[in-house]
Amino acid sequence: MKQFAVIGLGRFGSSVARTLSKMDYEVLGLDVNEERVNDIIEDVTHAVQLDALDDHSLQAVGIRNFDVVVVGIGQEVQSSILVTLMLKEMGVKRVVAKAQNDLHGKVLERVGADKVVFPERDMGIKLAHALVSQNIMEQISLSPEYSLVEMAAPPNFVNKTLEKSGARQQYGVSILAIRRGEDMIISPGASQEILEGDILVVIGKNEKLQKFDTVEV
Amino acid sequence: MKQFAVIGLGRFGSSVARTLSKMDYEVLGLDVNEERVNDIIEDVTHAVQLDALDDHSLQAVGIRNFDVVVVGIGQEVQSSILVTLMLKEMGVKRVVAKAQNDLHGKVLERVGADKVVFPERDMGIKLAHALVSQNIMEQISLSPEYSLVEMAAPPNFVNKTLEKSGARQQYGVSILAIRRGEDMIISPGASQEILEGDILVVIGKNEKLQKFDTVEV
Ligand SMILES: Nc1ncnc2c1ncn2[C@@H]1O[C@H](COP(=O)(O)OP(=O)(O)OP(=O)(O)O)[C@@H](O)[C@H]1O
Ligand SMILES: Nc1ncnc2c1ncn2[C@@H]1O[C@H](COP(=O)(O)OP(=O)(O)OP(=O)(O)O)[C@@H](O)[C@H]1O
Ligand SMILES: [Ca+2]
Ligand SMILES: [Ca+2]
Ligand SMILES: [Ca+2]
Ligand SMILES: [Ca+2]
Repeated sequence: MKQFAVIGLGRFGSSVARTLSKMDYEVLGLDVNEERVNDIIEDVTHAVQLDALDDHSLQAVGIRNFDVVVVGIGQEVQSSILVTLMLKEMGVKRVVAKAQNDLHGKVLERVGADKVVFPERDMGIKLAHALVSQNIMEQISLSPEYSLVEMAAPPNFVNKTLEKSGARQQYGVSILAIRRGEDMIISPGASQEILEGDILVVIGKNEKLQKFDTVEV
Repeated sequence: MKQFAVIGLGRFGSSVARTLSKMDYEVLGLDVNEERVNDIIEDVTHAVQLDALDDHSLQAVGIRNFDVVVVGIGQEVQSSILVTLMLKEMGVKRVVAKAQNDLHGKVLERVGADKVVFPERDMGIKLAHALVSQNIMEQISLSPEYSLVEMAAPPNFVNKTLEKSGARQQYGVSILAIRRGEDMIISPGASQEILEGDILVVIGKNEKLQKFDTVEV
């Protein structure tokens, strides 16, 4: 079983640590702030107060032995960069670091981060899309052209069969599954009727999905 | 076309504002910090420096006329709560507010927020899942029981037909689509072969998907 360490237990880091711990992985949480350490101590395997800029402290907790180290330090850009560099120099196999902005992200990659994440930016993009959607609830980008969406059935599709709805012929999208309450109808046939409250799983080209989302009522 | 205002142009708020603006929506950006305002002024319709705790300033920019106001104030929990309350009292139809933690989220709902978001927590959960996945790249939760995933084809499925792979019979999951380079194979038949580099769209119960993700090589 993989072992994880999380350095910087802000909102993002503590969420990573708690989620891994809930999935029964061993998690070491580290933060320079004692309060942050105390907040999480019950939820993870170990939590230690230390300044990650001090390489002796990192060595003392055996940081090299962890399979993945997540650097959740955010506002202190310089610290996040130095800590990432130190971890790679100490031989940590996989370092995932959180970036403030594009420039910070580029520097983190340059000093050896194996993966850089932009939590605030990515969730901002996601919320913006949700705010302008009529029916789309969640979305996965499959390629530059295609996406997969979870969406409420557009009102004027209700009580029509898939065939009559024109989803494929008129809108050029494919309905792959229908969630109806607790039931899941997988690969529905042409004669399947769409009912009020149905949640659809739809695949298609991005511009087709956008039109399908904003179908006039 | 809907009009949006974003109060608090940190990493999250500025990402929401920029994304909406790129989609050609009208966006007003507001922050008490002049630097934040200057950073975004070229990217949005209008950007104004003001303290959102001052209701006269908010009235002066006509905040009531916006369809959606996003409160991106984060660390200043008390400000985020007061501003949300003021916006609802001024009659703003839809207020979306960012929360620091569960308690903050509950108070925001109590004072009238129409939607509360937890960007750092949600991206922390997402990263944790990505770190322990073998093949899963993205995931949509459809119900407490079912999810939809985008995943790399598990290595021991390569060069097998869907029928021979046992995906449905043995693992209890359904392959709804296959991305092969720029092509998308929608609702593949039983005789469809899985090739190296294929990306699969798979639906199933959560525990089945988890087993399918960690199939022994
Ligand atoms: N040198 C360091 N060693 C250990 N922990 C550190 C160090 N520098 C910062 N931290 C911790 O990292 C955590 C996250 O930092 P900060 O709050 O600045 O980032 P943030 O991006 O605003 O976080 P979030 O958005 O996830 O809440 C804090 O708890 C802070 O104490
Ligand atoms: N009363 C206020 N009026 C207007 N803007 C405000 C007010 N209070 C805070 N802000 C702005 O809100 C923005 C976000 O606040 P802060 O940086 O504390 O939150 P955060 O959660 O760490 O942000 P992020 O993680 O999105 O970067 C800042 O740019 C800050 O200047
Ligand atoms: Ca912060
Ligand atoms: Ca943050
Ligand atoms: Ca993807
Ligand atoms: Ca969902």
